[in-house]
Amino acid sequence: MPVSKKSAAEILVSKFIVIEGLEGAGKSTAVSYITKWLFKQNIATCDTVYTREPGGTELAEKMRDIVKIEVTGEKLDDKAELLLMYAARVQLVEHIIKPALVAGKIVVGDRHNMSSLAYQGGGRGIDLALIEVIKKLALGDFKADLTLYLDIDPELGLQRARGRGELDRIERQAIDFFDRTRAVFLSLVAKDKNAVTINAGQSPELVEKAIFVALDKWVMSLA
Amino acid sequence: MPVSKKSAAEILVSKFIVIEGLEGAGKSTAVSYITKWLFKQNIATCDTVYTREPGGTELAEKMRDIVKIEVTGEKLDDKAELLLMYAARVQLVEHIIKPALVAGKIVVGDRHNMSSLAYQGGGRGIDLALIEVIKKLALGDFKADLTLYLDIDPELGLQRARGRGELDRIERQAIDFFDRTRAVFLSLVAKDKNAVTINAGQSPELVEKAIFVALDKWVMSLA
Repeated sequence: MPVSKKSAAEILVSKFIVIEGLEGAGKSTAVSYITKWLFKQNIATCDTVYTREPGGTELAEKMRDIVKIEVTGEKLDDKAELLLMYAARVQLVEHIIKPALVAGKIVVGDRHNMSSLAYQGGGRGIDLALIEVIKKLALGDFKADLTLYLDIDPELGLQRARGRGELDRIERQAIDFFDRTRAVFLSLVAKDKNAVTINAGQSPELVEKAIFVALDKWVMSLA
Repeated sequence: MPVSKKSAAEILVSKFIVIEGLEGAGKSTAVSYITKWLFKQNIATCDTVYTREPGGTELAEKMRDIVKIEVTGEKLDDKAELLLMYAARVQLVEHIIKPALVAGKIVVGDRHNMSSLAYQGGGRGIDLALIEVIKKLALGDFKADLTLYLDIDPELGLQRARGRGELDRIERQAIDFFDRTRAVFLSLVAKDKNAVTINAGQSPELVEKAIFVALDKWVMSLA
């Protein structure tokens, strides 16, 4: 049963769509594909709010800076990194995302909770159960309505990211850090009925098509 | 049984002494009294490390800045504040305090964990059990060997703090915020066998004397 444009727009009110993936997976491009798709559903740009994590508010961006910078002679502790990520996430969720959803807007997020489990859990090796406890304490049951995980081979993703310019502190980790991060992403998506894996190693046209298919299917499931 | 100066110095190896209290309680002055007392125990200045929280490392000071600043149109969420405090604490403990204790030094801290329970728990009203969970996840069983809590009437403390100059974001809370904070400090000290309340409303000479008595008694108990 095809979904009418009008009903898709109605269905999408107050929904939180998240893009996840490793460096160089093409998250920013994927956001532009989502925007294109939303336009096709007759959803005005002013009804969509875009966020990025960590960051997205003046205070959360300051927390992002701390996570990203390198300080001579001082390594950011892994648990401090995790707590900063959740501090920034709470700030963004309470200050931007929840009010936007309450106002009926669609929120499109560049990264959200899955990234902490994948990077700090998989990459850094912090117990996933511990991260789930912090998530629950910080955000309760708040979560994305749909997560599109852009899966890419870490070597290929980092090669793309390098092409964009200098890598930041996290992006300069060894390749096995990203292998562990990817493995957690894949296992989380496999367990989450609201998450879909997109093959981000294929051509932009095929990635776009796969995202459109995933979004269409999701809207159909909510109709 | 009097403790010899030499044995006090031996006893004090790798000990973490913390000063807690409301704004204007006289924490900085209390640190100078502790320094004077340590000098009387024949402990060299180079064997003592001083910390302040939140802050105390380059990265933790950046987290402190986020907690202290006011941003137009954006209130720092209470849980984000709590998570930032623990991010800064983990960074300080892992980067400065633990290495100093391992090296046999005495660490004197201006604030530590009790402040989070008192301010974010008492003041902000976050469930103390939730804060204890975050503490445990972030720091495990790490804790101060001795806490000297400088108890002061909030009105008097704030009056003193105002005399020093402009108050920061936290210091500008309403008086009942500090009444709740003080109540939690008092209840925590009452339950903690390694914590002592010092009446900070009395004259500097009497505060100094009370701190010396508390330190002497503590060293005796460890002899």
